[in-house]
Amino acid sequence: MSVLSGFLLKSGSIQFNSICRRYISAKAFIFQKQFQGFPKESDFKLVNEELPALKDGEFLAAAEYLSVDPYMRAYAPRVKTGKTFMGSQIAKILESKNPDFPEGKYIVGEYGWRTHTVSNGKPLANGVPSAWLIPDLGNLPISLALGVLGMPGNTAYFGLLEICKPKAGETVIITGAAGAVGSHVGQIAKIKGCKTIGVAGSDEKGKWLVQELGFDHFINYKTDNVKAKLKEYAPNKIDCYFDNVGGGISSLIMMYMNLFGRISVCGAISGYNETELPKAPIVQYPMTFNQLKMEGFIVHRWLDRWLEGIEQNKNWIQEGKLKYPETVTNGFENMYEAFTDMLRGGNIGKAIVKV
Amino acid sequence: MSVLSGFLLKSGSIQFNSICRRYISAKAFIFQKQFQGFPKESDFKLVNEELPALKDGEFLAAAEYLSVDPYMRAYAPRVKTGKTFMGSQIAKILESKNPDFPEGKYIVGEYGWRTHTVSNGKPLANGVPSAWLIPDLGNLPISLALGVLGMPGNTAYFGLLEICKPKAGETVIITGAAGAVGSHVGQIAKIKGCKTIGVAGSDEKGKWLVQELGFDHFINYKTDNVKAKLKEYAPNKIDCYFDNVGGGISSLIMMYMNLFGRISVCGAISGYNETELPKAPIVQYPMTFNQLKMEGFIVHRWLDRWLEGIEQNKNWIQEGKLKYPETVTNGFENMYEAFTDMLRGGNIGKAIVKV
Repeated sequence: MSVLSGFLLKSGSIQFNSICRRYISAKAFIFQKQFQGFPKESDFKLVNEELPALKDGEFLAAAEYLSVDPYMRAYAPRVKTGKTFMGSQIAKILESKNPDFPEGKYIVGEYGWRTHTVSNGKPLANGVPSAWLIPDLGNLPISLALGVLGMPGNTAYFGLLEICKPKAGETVIITGAAGAVGSHVGQIAKIKGCKTIGVAGSDEKGKWLVQELGFDHFINYKTDNVKAKLKEYAPNKIDCYFDNVGGGISSLIMMYMNLFGRISVCGAISGYNETELPKAPIVQYPMTFNQLKMEGFIVHRWLDRWLEGIEQNKNWIQEGKLKYPETVTNGFENMYEAFTDMLRGGNIGKAIVKV
Repeated sequence: MSVLSGFLLKSGSIQFNSICRRYISAKAFIFQKQFQGFPKESDFKLVNEELPALKDGEFLAAAEYLSVDPYMRAYAPRVKTGKTFMGSQIAKILESKNPDFPEGKYIVGEYGWRTHTVSNGKPLANGVPSAWLIPDLGNLPISLALGVLGMPGNTAYFGLLEICKPKAGETVIITGAAGAVGSHVGQIAKIKGCKTIGVAGSDEKGKWLVQELGFDHFINYKTDNVKAKLKEYAPNKIDCYFDNVGGGISSLIMMYMNLFGRISVCGAISGYNETELPKAPIVQYPMTFNQLKMEGFIVHRWLDRWLEGIEQNKNWIQEGKLKYPETVTNGFENMYEAFTDMLRGGNIGKAIVKV
């Protein structure tokens, strides 16, 4: 049952419908102020917005889960203040005048931090769909469409396999290993027969990566001697590096890579909350010596293969090879807390908010 | 005439030959001490070494030109102290008991900083030839086999074309643009129809790049406002970056690149003389946002296409499209001065020493 069902009185009568619609309002977090350093609560404002009646081609979607992701911090400068803050959500279509998005279906919508949205379903300016119907997930929870069976899942799938191209027997290292993408990448590396080392910021996460997800080794970048651990865990050095964080730890890992090693750069969370780009030991030295290849990516470059990634990840889950941890925060009003907790590394696996 | 001809008395008699050989000695720079920071003269020792008589399969080569290159600073830690310092030379074969390397021919030999060498011509431990016969260069000076028609020339040819893959109309930027490789890369970029921007450390070099070599623009990284110049000279941003230096200037350029830009990392001379890797703003941020691809390389990966590069560069010279500046230092005893002058950016084009 949607949260709206209590007050959205449906009827075949257009007139009645339009009368009802006057009572529908959305809650939304407006981006009040560009972040300076770490996001502050006062950078957002929670408002109520009355929604207009549907025109032909439009539909009304009610959020059930919302995503908080590291990229939001990085892309915030592209959001105009006064607008809803960015992000994906799983929403149920409550009402529709668009045959491509029928009532009752679930979608992933790029609607930002808001509970209700009137959408025409057309792609965004950058060509990315503003909404896509969630394919049949069988018995799996719908929330996975924001995680392992959605954008982060495809980020792990394509970002590792297409850029690092890991081969069985190689050693793969992942920073930000306990996050939605990192924890998934490590599991794919294991599926592909690689030795897998996760780097994260707490021993609790490390224990979970090794004992629950099957990583071979864990390095705590806050407390371990990273150089010594690299030598111990990767006596044959590193072949593939999936980089979520950038910065000093990346420079260190790159000094410990094999000839023709591959680096997939998914993000640079170590620098997102800095007002200036932080400095780290230069990478060009190991890049040249070991003829490394490094590539940054945004997952939407594989939009034409989107369902391939989802299908493969779903199959791995069903075969028992892929786990899908989630950290769920309850209540739309807690978006800010969920977001900043995730930025501080408080989550394990995918961080989502249940409306 | 070889410098040896005055005292190498040749004869058909093996006995006489072996007597003569007792009088042949080589001058060599021995690597006395690993560099700490910028190389010091006392890190080398100039010695005389008596050479043994040739065995079957060996030949005697006399250096005529020696190369000084940035890579020597970077690779120095791999040279054992007490051994001849590393480097290529053009040598004439004075005497031979190896039919693959006949008397009178010219070779490029990986013999290091020494005037005379007894060699068996076998590949080095890493598979790279220790000596290769210089192909017919027509009327061109033999010294080019150390520069535009040798390793640096192939570095420019393959490093730009295979990694950056520049397309006509794109904008290519080169750091270390006045060096042997950089000045060559810029000319190939022009041949390929690209807008070409050179970055170097003096206006004299800049004038030469633009007026003599046909670069479109020049940036003096020491005195210009690099950000402002990038905006002025590359209104459509940078598509390809050929990086010889690494460090802060590279981080800056990468922030100004186009989506799917390509970076060929040839070296990191900005860090070679530091005792610790210098720090620079992290690159992972622009790598991700603009989905950049960066690859480091060592030219020997294209050994199987070596003559292709030389042939193409020779053709471009003969068509008048490629110039081949050299900075020549006279006298083998001045190797150290030539080397350190090159490291300080004193050279324009290829730095060589004439014995």
